[in-house]
Amino acid sequence: MTTALLDSLRQIVGAAHVLTDGDLTAYEQDWRKRVKGKALAVVRPASTAEVAAVVKACAAAGSPMVPQGGNTGLSVGSTPDGSGTQVVLSLTRMNQVRAIDRDNLTMTVEAGCILQSLQETADKEGLLFPLSLAAEGSCTIGGNLGTNAGGTQVVRYGNTRELCLGLEVVTPQGEVWDGLSGLRKDNTGYDLRDLFIGSEGTLGVITAATMKLFPQPAARLTAWAAVPSMQAAVRLLGLAHQHLGAGLTGFEVMGRFALSLVIKHMPQLRVPFAGLDGAPPYYVLLENSDSESEEHARERFEALLEFAFEDGCVLDAVVAESLSQAHELWHIRESIPLAQAEEGLNIKHDISIAASRIPAFVEHTDALLQREIPGVRLVNFGHLGDGNLHYNVQAPEGGDAREFLRTQEDRVNQLVYDAVALFHGSFSAEHGVGVLKADKLAHYKSPVALSMMRAIKQALDPQGLMNPGCILQK
Amino acid sequence: MTTALLDSLRQIVGAAHVLTDGDLTAYEQDWRKRVKGKALAVVRPASTAEVAAVVKACAAAGSPMVPQGGNTGLSVGSTPDGSGTQVVLSLTRMNQVRAIDRDNLTMTVEAGCILQSLQETADKEGLLFPLSLAAEGSCTIGGNLGTNAGGTQVVRYGNTRELCLGLEVVTPQGEVWDGLSGLRKDNTGYDLRDLFIGSEGTLGVITAATMKLFPQPAARLTAWAAVPSMQAAVRLLGLAHQHLGAGLTGFEVMGRFALSLVIKHMPQLRVPFAGLDGAPPYYVLLENSDSESEEHARERFEALLEFAFEDGCVLDAVVAESLSQAHELWHIRESIPLAQAEEGLNIKHDISIAASRIPAFVEHTDALLQREIPGVRLVNFGHLGDGNLHYNVQAPEGGDAREFLRTQEDRVNQLVYDAVALFHGSFSAEHGVGVLKADKLAHYKSPVALSMMRAIKQALDPQGLMNPGCILQK
Repeated sequence: MTTALLDSLRQIVGAAHVLTDGDLTAYEQDWRKRVKGKALAVVRPASTAEVAAVVKACAAAGSPMVPQGGNTGLSVGSTPDGSGTQVVLSLTRMNQVRAIDRDNLTMTVEAGCILQSLQETADKEGLLFPLSLAAEGSCTIGGNLGTNAGGTQVVRYGNTRELCLGLEVVTPQGEVWDGLSGLRKDNTGYDLRDLFIGSEGTLGVITAATMKLFPQPAARLTAWAAVPSMQAAVRLLGLAHQHLGAGLTGFEVMGRFALSLVIKHMPQLRVPFAGLDGAPPYYVLLENSDSESEEHARERFEALLEFAFEDGCVLDAVVAESLSQAHELWHIRESIPLAQAEEGLNIKHDISIAASRIPAFVEHTDALLQREIPGVRLVNFGHLGDGNLHYNVQAPEGGDAREFLRTQEDRVNQLVYDAVALFHGSFSAEHGVGVLKADKLAHYKSPVALSMMRAIKQALDPQGLMNPGCILQK
Repeated sequence: MTTALLDSLRQIVGAAHVLTDGDLTAYEQDWRKRVKGKALAVVRPASTAEVAAVVKACAAAGSPMVPQGGNTGLSVGSTPDGSGTQVVLSLTRMNQVRAIDRDNLTMTVEAGCILQSLQETADKEGLLFPLSLAAEGSCTIGGNLGTNAGGTQVVRYGNTRELCLGLEVVTPQGEVWDGLSGLRKDNTGYDLRDLFIGSEGTLGVITAATMKLFPQPAARLTAWAAVPSMQAAVRLLGLAHQHLGAGLTGFEVMGRFALSLVIKHMPQLRVPFAGLDGAPPYYVLLENSDSESEEHARERFEALLEFAFEDGCVLDAVVAESLSQAHELWHIRESIPLAQAEEGLNIKHDISIAASRIPAFVEHTDALLQREIPGVRLVNFGHLGDGNLHYNVQAPEGGDAREFLRTQEDRVNQLVYDAVALFHGSFSAEHGVGVLKADKLAHYKSPVALSMMRAIKQALDPQGLMNPGCILQK
């Protein structure tokens, strides 16, 4: 049976694109190297028709499939299990930009396109594709859609979901749904598009998408502010919305300890206001995009910061004077995960809570963790504009990080996720569920919602062959 | 059986809220008076618990249910059929604003809240709830969600879908799903929220929702431009995006004949540039919202219009000097449906097409209709910013409109919808499918999509009791 399936797959995509031998680690191991599986084969189709034929062949053989893009996911959602029975369906050869429609402000792209290349494609047209996140040099738009990726521009442009107008999908039965519409309004029946977005390859394979484009702003300015508390950061967010309107394109928060790790491990970076004793507890990076001019952007930014300073929610602030200064400020923010890795293994979270509840959540959970695990260090940073925190936990100073993870990870997760639930938040804001957090979904999600999800999964994939164990536990 | 059910319903909501006698036309007839059905009863629950109990009682009795809000829908999606067996579930007593969260920029509201009252609620808080459409004085937010209503601010703020962060839903089994999250990022499993939005009461009953709020703009300005062609209108749209960025909050197009009906039937309205012989073929109403000041908004608007004039895509333009002038311009736009009604019965369409394809679509379809039905008059207007046209068809001058509809409506619909399909558009942009267009869905929607929709309907509503015949034909 297996031989017959492999023969069929080779006929469909060519023998060179059915990988079974050699080192397949890049396909079989997840990005953070938490899990290494074993694939029956890695199949690399080059067209929608090939994807459909591959899915049909696997379905006929009863072989489970794991769709995969750049394999940069953080929740183990695109690697095979250890059984050696799953076919990895790698979309990376489907990397064509099928169309750019300037008048409609859309582009239609294949699932395997690298995110950064799509940003560049738009840029060449004088347009903006705003999705931006750390893995953009490696991740694919198909993966972004499958996980509904977020990133740093969500406060203005939304998640991947909000950037997508239409999809092309191969169903678990190997049929092609052409939903590649460039329409901004289309109320003809159930919203299948949004059902597939964020379904992490468990309901079908996204092969192409029509994405929104935007005019390039005339200027983008970055500011950095020290704030006296998380409550003040939330207050600043409200003022920024009010003063900048849709000009507000980025609003990141960083805790003092997170920045102290950057200062320690990347001493070449100058971190404003954060290095001294008695430095403020939180810092905010703001981005203001302007459709008019840099001068206008600067005026608006300065008016906001002056108001916020008078108001007391900002202690000190600086607006980047040049593009390179702006990049430097963003670089500090983006260096936190690396600085954290330098400091040692740690426990990562990707949570969201209504902005209004974040100050109380942080106060509650900081104290709780300190009480339960004395000396634990909190690396708190994230996209406050979207209520999304990467509330990460580092072992106590000088402790054995590996041992800490081994003995404390489950407990820390439970403490944090219980607190998130208490504050009506989500245990997965932008990274998805994958296999890694499927148990959390089973525990924290409403049973009514879970039961509807299972019914939908059963309805669309009755054989249960699409990415089994991802999102919904087997 | 029926008596037992009615007794149960009376016990749940009180006898006064189970209507079976007297004139129930307001509940049994659709807004445009195309269909009048007969309900078994109209039930008016006042709480989510009551809705759940009503649904459980109906499900146990095998009685079909038709959820209803303000009953202002344009596609016959919220009235009972003629069988006398369906229970109308009116949500209008569920009209509480449960919470306003200023820091999170959200409000949680019950399904029966009138749209205009929600706009006013936000306004009192100094915030904006941007959803705005003709029926806002009567329609409910539950109905807006059920049909994913659009309106005049979509170019900036999106459809109702994009304004909703979370839902509370009573399932067809009478269970309550509390998905009332105020989260802007939440990737924990399938997107049930967007599945219910736009499902027109066929998958469950939306009882409450958490909706986004926005800062009030500092100024809103309105302009009116005459343009030489539809192509020029599309060009102006691109320039407006570029010059105004997210300031562009409205972009409406109107054909000369549509405006000539306003001039004829509302002679008190002064319609700029449109009254004379040889007047331009199309007119655009633009709205620019500014987070800074009226002065700034005016500068930006004038810069845009000057550029567009030089470019040739604008022939003449005026920016409203006062709020009352702005209202007057909007009033002209909003008077088109009334002027049309004054002129006589007509055939309405609510179509969407990628903006880039609209000029060719209009040229093709105008010519086609003139050829097939000589003398036919096209009342073309709509939300060009969203690619949404109300491409309506009026009987030839002096003809018998009733006779025209009787003999030509099906043919006109087929000509128009076939043309829409040819240009990859949608036959229902913002009005939904309802019972009225269920046959169009069966005809024009991809069979793969239809089959997935049927599978989802069967999975969530296996008894088939929720609004049967709406969207999917029985």
